[in-house]
Amino acid sequence: MDLTITDVRLTPILVADPPLLNTQGVHQPYTPRLIIEVETADGVTGLGETYGDTKYLELARPFAGRLLGRSVADHNGLFTVMNGVDVDRERVVDQVDVGGLRGVQTADKLRLSVVSGFEVACLDALGKALGLPVHALLGGKVRDAVEYSAYLFYKWAEHPAGVAAERDDWGAALDPAGVVEQARKFTERYGFTSFKLKGGVFPPEEEIAAVRALAEAFPGHPLRLDPNGAWSVETSLTVAKELGDVLEYLEDPALGTDAMAEVAARAGVPLATNMCVTTFAEIPDAFTRGAVQVVLSDHHYWGGLRNTQRLAAICRTFGVGVSMHSNTHLGISLAAMTHVAATVPGLHHACDSHYPWQSEDVLTQRLTFDAGRVTVTDTPGLGVELDHDRLAFLHRRWLDDDGTLRDRDDAAAMRVAEPGWETPSVPRW
Amino acid sequence: MDLTITDVRLTPILVADPPLLNTQGVHQPYTPRLIIEVETADGVTGLGETYGDTKYLELARPFAGRLLGRSVADHNGLFTVMNGVDVDRERVVDQVDVGGLRGVQTADKLRLSVVSGFEVACLDALGKALGLPVHALLGGKVRDAVEYSAYLFYKWAEHPAGVAAERDDWGAALDPAGVVEQARKFTERYGFTSFKLKGGVFPPEEEIAAVRALAEAFPGHPLRLDPNGAWSVETSLTVAKELGDVLEYLEDPALGTDAMAEVAARAGVPLATNMCVTTFAEIPDAFTRGAVQVVLSDHHYWGGLRNTQRLAAICRTFGVGVSMHSNTHLGISLAAMTHVAATVPGLHHACDSHYPWQSEDVLTQRLTFDAGRVTVTDTPGLGVELDHDRLAFLHRRWLDDDGTLRDRDDAAAMRVAEPGWETPSVPRW
Repeated sequence: MDLTITDVRLTPILVADPPLLNTQGVHQPYTPRLIIEVETADGVTGLGETYGDTKYLELARPFAGRLLGRSVADHNGLFTVMNGVDVDRERVVDQVDVGGLRGVQTADKLRLSVVSGFEVACLDALGKALGLPVHALLGGKVRDAVEYSAYLFYKWAEHPAGVAAERDDWGAALDPAGVVEQARKFTERYGFTSFKLKGGVFPPEEEIAAVRALAEAFPGHPLRLDPNGAWSVETSLTVAKELGDVLEYLEDPALGTDAMAEVAARAGVPLATNMCVTTFAEIPDAFTRGAVQVVLSDHHYWGGLRNTQRLAAICRTFGVGVSMHSNTHLGISLAAMTHVAATVPGLHHACDSHYPWQSEDVLTQRLTFDAGRVTVTDTPGLGVELDHDRLAFLHRRWLDDDGTLRDRDDAAAMRVAEPGWETPSVPRW
Repeated sequence: MDLTITDVRLTPILVADPPLLNTQGVHQPYTPRLIIEVETADGVTGLGETYGDTKYLELARPFAGRLLGRSVADHNGLFTVMNGVDVDRERVVDQVDVGGLRGVQTADKLRLSVVSGFEVACLDALGKALGLPVHALLGGKVRDAVEYSAYLFYKWAEHPAGVAAERDDWGAALDPAGVVEQARKFTERYGFTSFKLKGGVFPPEEEIAAVRALAEAFPGHPLRLDPNGAWSVETSLTVAKELGDVLEYLEDPALGTDAMAEVAARAGVPLATNMCVTTFAEIPDAFTRGAVQVVLSDHHYWGGLRNTQRLAAICRTFGVGVSMHSNTHLGISLAAMTHVAATVPGLHHACDSHYPWQSEDVLTQRLTFDAGRVTVTDTPGLGVELDHDRLAFLHRRWLDDDGTLRDRDDAAAMRVAEPGWETPSVPRW
């Protein structure tokens, strides 16, 4: 058995994304992702997936070259290798992009976001070579299925007229009735029993009404509202007071540890985050001050599946809950999320996933939700298979793009419909 | 490849231990250890080692039975299995034994101390079955050798007359000259360049003089002093002031987070611990208050190698250093310590190990120190091999013991020489 990496293939693609609204704008009709294939001397190929924007590609390419000759079993060493790759700092600090929805932007975080895709690919290859599922490489599953939540969005029926885009059958959701209708479709199609609404789109009273409508339609079910830090402390407290009886948690109501700590101290509702605590460096201050009660991990920007386990261990030690954040992603990442989530004890909240919104994938067979859960596979590696034709098709779309869509920009996408749109300053309300 | 556990063999042994002094008394001439063999359906055997006292054996036996039919790849599940094994609480709370040198005694910690030996055995078996070294199962080594420190003890030349015991050639060390002489032997035999003196044996001024003598004999080398919590806050501060210019760190000068935090705030010398922070539950308070600057991990009581990695991740996140504690142990554990230490980034302090004091082992070939370091092996599993004859010999010694030595009791051993001896109350000075 030769675990040496002999080839690494990077394939940027553009995948269809519905017109989902958030506080910064709207999802582009196509969003960039990077598909990573790591091949060993024995011809075993592992799959990984991460962000596909230009700044990630520019880092992934030199990094990939340095992995040749290394072992797919060497995951800790990936960080050492990455530390030797220069990051174009202008790319990091000067671009106010959708990354703002994922908290602080630093060179280290950019590096970790790239490493994660390669770590998953190495784990997949290693598992296939050894005949073990990825969860076993992570110490073994402690559950046989991972629960996910319905990720509700305010949404247009379709992308703006004149824009090349795929169609979807979800319809519009721009008021409480529309949100409830979307939630019903989620339960019918996937069996989800927890609901998260992406907020920060409309004035708080409208979003409060939407959550109230969900609570009436699905009494007793866990509900969450996430305005991506669009609110002031006072607004956050008002919403918490209005919805305290029905919310499982409130997600990133305000920006930064100071504001979150103040809200947490007075809100009486647990606060979750994927913006306030997104790096190991942010943990001590936030945890010491009780600013967050649930960290929504995301293996992409925390640096992979092993780092996700480390994060979970820290949270467990400090009595902070853990669940999972999600951005637009495909089946490779959903499989990776499921494997690592299966190994984390005390996962008390259903994980987020955009996957139901992605009509396109690069797999021969899509992952499925049964009663809101993804079964943890014991198939070697991640347990997914690449559809090379689909990959080529989506890569062709990326090649054909004039550069407009290669860097995700929700504000730019919004300007197509509303020419004067600028990313709102926060707090917006 | 069938990774199913089909047999588990538990062999309690008694191994020779020199008359090393600590604040509670003196090491017994023979000390109990438990050797664990986990065998898979394919006939692959993994080795583990942990404490061998009765209360550990009583927990290990029912636990071993529950592992039959499980996979050696399932490490996270070991904790779940152990949670189902009852702990005789009287054994935990009523026995004030040498465990007091390792901090708090709880049922959970007792469980973790047993799980750890089995986790190592499972990792060894899994690595052998897959053809991978244990460090690769933990994500891969980030260094090729692990540095250890010389573990200096005040010591009698031999065990009390009339007591059955092995001889050793280290001689006595009961004053500064004796300690320096012992340190010289350590450097000659093993090449260590860091020195730790187990203190709390003589009044602080004598131990200060011993460390001063070491500093003169080995200028510029990292020095440590560990009285196992025998001092008051004021005494700790006095010692820190006297030795601040030569100490790498002061280890557990006083007992408990309150005292340690007070010393840490005023001492100007980093504090290390294997008594104040010995469980995940103790971390938040101690770290938040800055009570410790270096945690000396011990995979035995932290629950294994994966938990050691989790502890290291927490320390790294909170800017707390990490190194390794050691109690009397054999080569299986030294191999395990070396594998996990090889995977931990930022290991800035040489690890402790009693191994040079152990003239007996259960391996066909002892591990060796070269320039104070143990080379990280790439041999599958731990890279060690059991000597069945030696194991049988040491087990026979355990069988032949009348019960006197089966539970380590340093105070009882001291009473053989000093009949009136009682475990000193703390602070002793």
